[in-house]
Amino acid sequence: MTTRDILLRAKAATATLSTLTTEQKNNALAAMAQALLDDTAPILAANAADMEAAKATISPVMLDRLALTEARIAAMAAGIRQVAALPDPVGHQLSETIRADGLTIRKVSVPIGVVAIIYESRPNVTADAAALAVKSGNVCVLRVGKEAWRSANAIVTALRCGISSVGLSADMINLIEDTTRASATELMKADDLVDLLIPRGGAGLIRACIENATVPCIQTGTGICHIYVDKAADLEMALDIVDNAKMSRPSVCNACEVCLVHKDVAAEFLPRLKARLCDPARAVTAELRLDERAAAIIDGTLAGEADFDTEFLDYILAVRVVEDVEGAIAHIAAHSTHHSEAIVTADAATAARFTAAVDSSAVYVNASTRFTDGGEFGLGCEMGISTQKLHARGPMGLSELTTYKYVITGNGHTR
Amino acid sequence: MTTRDILLRAKAATATLSTLTTEQKNNALAAMAQALLDDTAPILAANAADMEAAKATISPVMLDRLALTEARIAAMAAGIRQVAALPDPVGHQLSETIRADGLTIRKVSVPIGVVAIIYESRPNVTADAAALAVKSGNVCVLRVGKEAWRSANAIVTALRCGISSVGLSADMINLIEDTTRASATELMKADDLVDLLIPRGGAGLIRACIENATVPCIQTGTGICHIYVDKAADLEMALDIVDNAKMSRPSVCNACEVCLVHKDVAAEFLPRLKARLCDPARAVTAELRLDERAAAIIDGTLAGEADFDTEFLDYILAVRVVEDVEGAIAHIAAHSTHHSEAIVTADAATAARFTAAVDSSAVYVNASTRFTDGGEFGLGCEMGISTQKLHARGPMGLSELTTYKYVITGNGHTR
Repeated sequence: MTTRDILLRAKAATATLSTLTTEQKNNALAAMAQALLDDTAPILAANAADMEAAKATISPVMLDRLALTEARIAAMAAGIRQVAALPDPVGHQLSETIRADGLTIRKVSVPIGVVAIIYESRPNVTADAAALAVKSGNVCVLRVGKEAWRSANAIVTALRCGISSVGLSADMINLIEDTTRASATELMKADDLVDLLIPRGGAGLIRACIENATVPCIQTGTGICHIYVDKAADLEMALDIVDNAKMSRPSVCNACEVCLVHKDVAAEFLPRLKARLCDPARAVTAELRLDERAAAIIDGTLAGEADFDTEFLDYILAVRVVEDVEGAIAHIAAHSTHHSEAIVTADAATAARFTAAVDSSAVYVNASTRFTDGGEFGLGCEMGISTQKLHARGPMGLSELTTYKYVITGNGHTR
Repeated sequence: MTTRDILLRAKAATATLSTLTTEQKNNALAAMAQALLDDTAPILAANAADMEAAKATISPVMLDRLALTEARIAAMAAGIRQVAALPDPVGHQLSETIRADGLTIRKVSVPIGVVAIIYESRPNVTADAAALAVKSGNVCVLRVGKEAWRSANAIVTALRCGISSVGLSADMINLIEDTTRASATELMKADDLVDLLIPRGGAGLIRACIENATVPCIQTGTGICHIYVDKAADLEMALDIVDNAKMSRPSVCNACEVCLVHKDVAAEFLPRLKARLCDPARAVTAELRLDERAAAIIDGTLAGEADFDTEFLDYILAVRVVEDVEGAIAHIAAHSTHHSEAIVTADAATAARFTAAVDSSAVYVNASTRFTDGGEFGLGCEMGISTQKLHARGPMGLSELTTYKYVITGNGHTR
């Protein structure tokens, strides 16, 4: 089918899906999970074909992201069952106003409609996004990178089959067949058919959406996250937090990329930071990229200006010495992607100033930036992490996939 | 100043404004109101110059929108004082999660940042938008049509003067000096400096924003609003509601443009509708544009297809006979701008079906669409009426001018 035909089919499915009961949606989710397990063999076969075709062109890290196993398919099915167990975000009365004249104004949560997701090569995103969409009453349109298309198609085939098996419309889950740039552009421009576009991928994809989309978008993901070590910091705590935020999983968006250090503690902290992150006894050590003041205290690569505006997604940490908390706030304002930032300090007033002034989706006091995640925040799941300010900020769970409408009931009221 | 310089000045002002106390903001608003009254003479002089320059080129209706009087200036000042009396939307704790490990996750309402508004010739929008922005902690950048620039400039000069008089930064309110299309385009593209763009104007302006903006936008205003008269309607109530929704103020976005009538009551209702709206004893009568089935029952202009996709903003009503509530729902899905729609029915099940299936910001049962308004909904004020689904839907008051951030407090927590 053409991309346009798939979108028309998706739009047509919104009317039914938006009025399903919680029980109907949960039945669909249970059937989707079971169908994934039942289709393990064809999904693995499709994935093997993707892997074979991709191995010459993509890196080992990307190949690992693409690879499916029986255990990973079981984990996808378990994930769908977890979404089924979450509260239904649709149909909540968010407010009620009864006017003196008796007119009753209720604000009620409703699905958004057609939600399109452009993503790259992780097949599990296919199942996660489909489950979140069904639970929130949204019809999803998935557009995957060409390396993962066979895998995604096998997964979507199973999910659609599961939905049909309980007598509901399979058209609530749709996979775009065209994997060229043309289909991504078409999704960005389909403002009569797409209610929300969520790009999940690298900075290039996000930028393409900002430049080209006429449909509403939520930018996700890019995280140049900062940790500021204040003069009043417990330095051992600061070491633990920076170590965790930089080294535990550097490829994710909530990993720390920049450490800012108060000038008064730099002489003590920086040698300890280097000893910790560059300890040859570690399995992997970090590369430090230092501004001039930091380089006067410890050895390391001298940072270029770009190093303070780069999402390394690697074992690399940029380090800058700042005058004080105001210097840290100013640096973050100039260089942050508004994802997650942290301060380490024992001074409550400094912490309050930092959390008030830093304009990011998550601002931490004495904790690692790695907690910015739907699961960690108690949302139960995640469609991505918004780095914009409209509609949703930070981890997006089921509630963030709803909007609202006003239902007003009168008895012949006129104005 | 260039548009870019004004935006840089606005961005720089966000840090201060976002951390002002409620009392400081209310002091600023009180001073703004007083300054408007004090500057009545220069504002009227500037408005007279605008009127003189515009009278040859714009219509009498537009001229009336542009005109200021002492009473209208006093009303603007009163409006600012009303905004001061509303609750502060910033700093509310929206949720709090304390995890088993002690990590505390608070979700707190915060200002959006720099809010740009592109509007046309109504000078009162200048004062309203400025007041809402200050109260919600946002820096506003106003871009008015050239016909109203002198008036807006005199108003902004007064407002900035008022803010300075209480020792705060006047840069929370900014007027773009360039009134050519270039400045509007620049606002749409300034994604490093503008956090939200609200276009308030005709369909052409909204479309230009959708096509060109790289900054987040909220579409406002266009209202092709429908009233469906069900077979179970109290027809006298239906007449009152259609009369009110069409005739009380046809130039506004919540006025009704299309009446859909159930086929079983069309033969009785349509002659009464014509008698009511086209009664020569009225000060103004309506023109009815009828589909073929309606035209078989009463006289009137035969409607072209475009008549069911036109925001008339005039004493014109398109009328169509439909099979039943499903026919009405399908017509609305195909033609609505998702603003406001109403059903008139005494049947609760039909009303429930209509409110569930119609995907508009406000869905009415037995009441006029004219109530879609921030003041009528109890929001105290209004920055516009959103017809999109992301972030805000329907009337936008102070809360809709905020976003949120997560503030997470730990004690050395790592993941």
